[in-house]
Parts: sequence; C-alpha cells; structure tokens
Amino acid sequence: MPELFKQMTVCGVGLIGGSLALIARRAGLAKTIVGLGRTRKNLDIAVKRKLIDRATRDPIEAARGADLIVLAVPILTMRRVLEPMLPYCAPGAIITDVGSVKGFVVRELEPLIAGKMSLVAAHPIAGKETAGAGAADPDLFRNRRVIITPSKTSTPAAIKKIETLWKATGARVEKMDPDSHDKILARASHLPQVVASALAAALGGEKVAGKTPTEYGAGGLRDTTRIAASPWEVWRDIFIANQAALATAMKRFEIAYAEFQRLIEMGDLDRLEPLFNRGRAMRERLK
Amino acid sequence: MPELFKQMTVCGVGLIGGSLALIARRAGLAKTIVGLGRTRKNLDIAVKRKLIDRATRDPIEAARGADLIVLAVPILTMRRVLEPMLPYCAPGAIITDVGSVKGFVVRELEPLIAGKMSLVAAHPIAGKETAGAGAADPDLFRNRRVIITPSKTSTPAAIKKIETLWKATGARVEKMDPDSHDKILARASHLPQVVASALAAALGGEKVAGKTPTEYGAGGLRDTTRIAASPWEVWRDIFIANQAALATAMKRFEIAYAEFQRLIEMGDLDRLEPLFNRGRAMRERLK
Repeated sequence: MPELFKQMTVCGVGLIGGSLALIARRAGLAKTIVGLGRTRKNLDIAVKRKLIDRATRDPIEAARGADLIVLAVPILTMRRVLEPMLPYCAPGAIITDVGSVKGFVVRELEPLIAGKMSLVAAHPIAGKETAGAGAADPDLFRNRRVIITPSKTSTPAAIKKIETLWKATGARVEKMDPDSHDKILARASHLPQVVASALAAALGGEKVAGKTPTEYGAGGLRDTTRIAASPWEVWRDIFIANQAALATAMKRFEIAYAEFQRLIEMGDLDRLEPLFNRGRAMRERLK
Repeated sequence: MPELFKQMTVCGVGLIGGSLALIARRAGLAKTIVGLGRTRKNLDIAVKRKLIDRATRDPIEAARGADLIVLAVPILTMRRVLEPMLPYCAPGAIITDVGSVKGFVVRELEPLIAGKMSLVAAHPIAGKETAGAGAADPDLFRNRRVIITPSKTSTPAAIKKIETLWKATGARVEKMDPDSHDKILARASHLPQVVASALAAALGGEKVAGKTPTEYGAGGLRDTTRIAASPWEVWRDIFIANQAALATAMKRFEIAYAEFQRLIEMGDLDRLEPLFNRGRAMRERLK
C-alpha cells in the first residue's frame, strides 16, 4: 500500500492504539510510527513487539513532525493530551481518535485546531478482555465496524486517508454524523452496560434466608451481568461524554421495564405476551 | 443402587423429565418407568431412546400402580394433570415435580393429596437450549443444583427417596422451604429474564438516523439480551406462579436502575463509582 503518512504518532499504545500502530506499520502506511505513553514499561513492550518505531513520554517530542495524531487515550483526557502537541505538528496534520463517544470529542477538539488542521474522529467497535501493548493484535478489527464521523474541519482528503487507514485493518468502515453515532451507541452499548451494572448492583450483597441468591443463578444470570465486571475507568468517561444520548436511551428502557412490572403485578398475560415477544424478536434478529 | 420405586410415572417426557427417567432407568431406581405425554411422536422417541419402559397418552393408565409420579409439565398445568391420576396411584405414592417455582406448586397440590400421599416438590436448576425427549441427556444435572422443598405432606421417608433419586443424577442436592426457594430464584433467575426481555423490547424496532442501533452492538449487547430469546410458554407460568417474589425482586432492580439514572443525569461520578463497583464486585464473585 502507498505511504499515507510521514509520521503517525499514537497517543496511548494500549490494546486499540497498539493494534492500529502494528497494522499501519506492517502495511507500510506510515514512514515512522511514534508512540506516546505515560509508563516506560508499556512503551518498552510496544517497541519490543515492533508495534511502533520509537517511544517517548514527551508530548512535544512525539508531536514534532507528525502529520497524523491518533488519540487512543480516555475520552476525557483527549483535549489535555492534544493541546500541548498542536504547535509542533506538521502543517495540515490530521487528528483522529478511537473514542466510543463522538459528539463530545468533536466539540472538545475542533475549536483547538480550526483553520490549521483537520479532525476526523473515528470509533472502532472492537475490544477484548485484555489491555495494554502486550494485548495488541493485528486481527482485532477484522470484520468489526469502524465508524468515521466527519465534522467541520474534516477535509475530503483527510477523511479519505482515515478511511484508507481503517480499511487496512480489515474492518467494515462507514461514515455517519457524530450525534447519530452517539444515539446509536447509547442504545447498542452504553444502555446495556448500565442495565447489566444496575442488575448486578441490585443483586449484590443481598441475603435471603441466610443464602446468597446469586449463587443459585445459571447461565442466564451470568450472561446478563457479564459486562458488569467492566472497568469503571472506561465507563466513567462514557457516562459523562455521552450523557444526553444515554439519558434518552435509559428513558426508553425505564418505560419498557415499568410496563413489564405493571403487567406482571396485574397478571395481565394478554398484554405481557406481545411485549415479551417484542424482546424475543429483537434477540432473534441479532443472531 | 437398590430399587427405590416399583413404578415411576413421568408426566411430560421432555428435556428434564426424559433425562431424569433415563438416569433412573440406568441406575435401576425403578422397576418400571412409564411416560405420560400428549404427542405420540415425542413418546415414540422416548421409547426408542429407552428413556422409559412404556409410553401412554392415558393419565389413568399412566397412574395405575405408580408409587412415584414426577410432574415435568408446565407449572400451571400440574394440578390439571395430577388430579385425574390420583385415584389410581399406589397407596402412599410420592408426588414430585421439577418446576422452577415451588410455593405455588405446594399450595396447588397439597390439598389434593393430603392424608393419602406425600408431596416432595423439587427444582433442578438445569436446562439447555433444546427441548423434547430427543434432547434428554444423562449428564444434564451433573454438578448442577437441585433444591428439594419439603412441605406438610412430605414424610421423612419420601424426602429421603427423592433425595436419593436426585443424588443419582450427580447433582448437588439441598433442602429449603418453598418460599425461600422462590425468593432466591426470583433474584437469580426470574429478574434477569425480565431485565433482559425489557432491554430487548426497549431496543427492538427503533431506528436512529435510518439505521438499526442493535446492529451496532458488540458482545455486551449480545450477552445482556441472550435470554430474551427464551420461549414465552416457559416464562408465562413463572410470571404468574412467582408473581409476589418476582415483584419484590423487580422493585430492587427498579431502585438500583433509578439511582444509576439519577447519578448519570446529574453527572455525579463520586456517587456513581461505588454503585458501579458494587455491580462489579457482585460479578467478580460470580466467576
């Protein structure tokens, strides 16, 4: 593949950032790949695994000459990470990210770069249980979705380059506006997290007749609460950054749950059946 | 193992009833095993697979001489299935069942048999995706929990026999009172079903920007809604039979969810973190 970038600087060489760096390096998409990180240990792994060409903990050194900055850091820290780097980037550099919320990222970053550079925010819907450069995986994005959310400063040329970068990962790349992305992910990802966490929180710690009810659960309980074990650090940022869309999605669940509650308490099977089967139909389509 | 029963009659030779019959036959726990069913096709499979010695669709024929009746039919139909059989059972016969709600079963069946026979209600917490005699599996109950819920007419000798029967399946057998069972299962099984169904129902059918949000979900959405695909026929009976305990469990979830909702809307991370981590801790203990 032709070289897309002279220097790709990846801020946060973890699972997502490290995997993308590895793929870009192997595909020859960037002449040099620089990793910016906080801990020497993780950066050493990234260099040793050849995810990146060189590593630094200095944002200015990382930015110097970069024509692509990939923000693979928590959503709420993106602005703080990017701001000191901007004066040192190459003219017309492209800024992208991998955050799971897009409206917030666009609103935070566009004012910083307007007129000078191009922001092309993106969200790869992929992940696994493990974290860090050691978990980086060249197949992480294969057949997964990557959503690119163009905004005001996204030039057609910059969008094209970010699309090419993501297509090299084997992902299915599509574009949509940041707010639609956030509404969709609030329903498909953020709401299920809150529901699973609330279920686990409701059941946690309670004793019935001296016994722990959750020990009597089978696969249903385990599946339904699995993601409740997700780390707070990831979700904290999403709860803040996608607050509005998540609140709307939560309202939809609140209404459906209250309807189940009302119909079960009334023993109204005639109305409960179509509601239950609406859920069944959704799940059948997901298979 | 010594013969426990002269004739074991299994009403409903499906996954659970068929598996239990198969295990009892192989272990020589009953001299004769009779299967009562509604459809000739399923009974033919049960005979062919040697789950039972003989099959019938006639309740009186099935009852004649039985000193053990196993009700492996939907909870709400147990009374209707058992009543016409009772005059034909052996004197002092034991009646047991495999339903997922116990207080309701005890209240329905005890008045029918008081003074004549012994009810020992039981609940094997086991299952799989497939149904019918064709799915019967001698390892279905291995290392799973079986809860026996003695009630007024349960004689010590009858309890002992039902315990021996279930121990032969490789299950972990324990006893508790019917109401504690129902409160525990409301939390460990019935509430997760309602939550998963309500989530699937809330998300089903909605379009955002012309797209179907659920198509953008990853493993989290799939896990959290997996049991929403369960059959209505199973859950209808549980929603009715365990209404009171389920309503209490649903209230607990309602409170936890409302607290998530309030704290996310307020952006109150300080209070959200311990609540989220209460859910994490519950899920970690489940592993």
